[in-house]
Amino acid sequence: MSTRVETPQDLSPRELRARIRRGEWRKPTAGVAAGYAQANLVVLPRDAAYDFLVFCQRNPKPCTLLEVTDPGNPEPAVTAPGADLRVDVPKYRVHRRGRPVTEEDDIRSYWRDDLVAFLLGCSFTFEGAMQRAGIPVRHIDCGRNVPMYVTSTPCRPAGAFHGPMVVSMRPLPALHVPRAVLITGRYTRAHGAPVHIGDPAAIGIKDLSRPDYGEPPVIEPGEVPVFWACGVTPQAVAVAAGVEFMITHAPGHMFVTDLLDEDLAGG
Amino acid sequence: MSTRVETPQDLSPRELRARIRRGEWRKPTAGVAAGYAQANLVVLPRDAAYDFLVFCQRNPKPCTLLEVTDPGNPEPAVTAPGADLRVDVPKYRVHRRGRPVTEEDDIRSYWRDDLVAFLLGCSFTFEGAMQRAGIPVRHIDCGRNVPMYVTSTPCRPAGAFHGPMVVSMRPLPALHVPRAVLITGRYTRAHGAPVHIGDPAAIGIKDLSRPDYGEPPVIEPGEVPVFWACGVTPQAVAVAAGVEFMITHAPGHMFVTDLLDEDLAGG
Repeated sequence: MSTRVETPQDLSPRELRARIRRGEWRKPTAGVAAGYAQANLVVLPRDAAYDFLVFCQRNPKPCTLLEVTDPGNPEPAVTAPGADLRVDVPKYRVHRRGRPVTEEDDIRSYWRDDLVAFLLGCSFTFEGAMQRAGIPVRHIDCGRNVPMYVTSTPCRPAGAFHGPMVVSMRPLPALHVPRAVLITGRYTRAHGAPVHIGDPAAIGIKDLSRPDYGEPPVIEPGEVPVFWACGVTPQAVAVAAGVEFMITHAPGHMFVTDLLDEDLAGG
Repeated sequence: MSTRVETPQDLSPRELRARIRRGEWRKPTAGVAAGYAQANLVVLPRDAAYDFLVFCQRNPKPCTLLEVTDPGNPEPAVTAPGADLRVDVPKYRVHRRGRPVTEEDDIRSYWRDDLVAFLLGCSFTFEGAMQRAGIPVRHIDCGRNVPMYVTSTPCRPAGAFHGPMVVSMRPLPALHVPRAVLITGRYTRAHGAPVHIGDPAAIGIKDLSRPDYGEPPVIEPGEVPVFWACGVTPQAVAVAAGVEFMITHAPGHMFVTDLLDEDLAGG
């Protein structure tokens, strides 16, 4: 009888979060707890949270909300009952006046009764669906973080929040592009279909080899760059708007929810 | 050369809103300005608006937000630039402590600098798509308002807002049910797929012939009742929660936006 070795891909969201909480997992979360939806995290004081809610409503492609916690309560009771958003993310970024000032493993010392946590859909959801459909996802195959770019496309502003949309890019053989649109378009709560296909300059990206977040892409001859709205947008908006105080996940180090990837498909 | 008679169906949203503003249209808006998305209206003071935003985030099937205006500004700049939400809806309901107290044609005398208007997706969007697909929509064919029911399904609460989900019901021959699910499921910003198919008692509806809003249904032998989340839910929630002050559209008398029905299809 063979003994099956448990891989991070096999972990349940609850077990993965327990490992993170015990300090046993500080790495990016791409590919772990396969089939479960991961989420971008944004934490803001209640007095900034209204404008951020309206910002998300006005910019649903980069900022689809999966959950908004009650002020002061770090438990995401809808998407991961029993979890604690102060300790269950592998790495956090603390931003002051729009700038990331430190990275932390644990944000309990920053927590306040007026903080509201927002969880936003993440492209890891549709990447799994692309792979299951036989569409290769280059940055995963290369073991890299996805390249992300600040565009010239402004988000719709809301109160203090304004700034550019951030996109992630996946190079695809032209043959795969229409199917990739259909497959990712199903996941309306995880950025959905691409926002742009082709010429990077059309959305203000000067040099694909120099992403603003993540790692440079590997693009094969004849491949088409395909761009999806990205959940890192609030971090670019925090910079543009000089947001006083905000905590986010560190890029790639997401919160793993109990939702299934399929829960993020519209309908 | 024949002279074409303009019907309400042919009107542009702008022209229809102009007629409403001039007092020339006080009727329900079903079927007018065909192809353009209509919306449920909720107006609340800014100090209740945060909880309502979170309520909508937590209950996206009945309450998908198409737009949230800036406090005091009655112009829905995203979905109908130039419109005025105080005069461009054919009939309003004013609610105090959760109860509808009066109906008005014009809410300028109620308007305040702290009021926020919310526009929510409406099932008229997917009814057009059903009809174009050859699926008859009974209440339209009978010239009635759609029957709506308060269910035993609680909404997820948010702050002061709590209460039951309201559903609309359309009877369908069993043959049409799967296709109706697929067609309406495309319109993720207009309630999407049904929330229940079949036995009304399973969602706490005792008597289909006695709807809580709208008009009684006409159900033919062998037809299946199909239930969709309904944008009247905030009005039931206002009752349950005793909301201090709220203005809504009168059921069936919607705001007609410049968005295309197709803009409410996810992706």
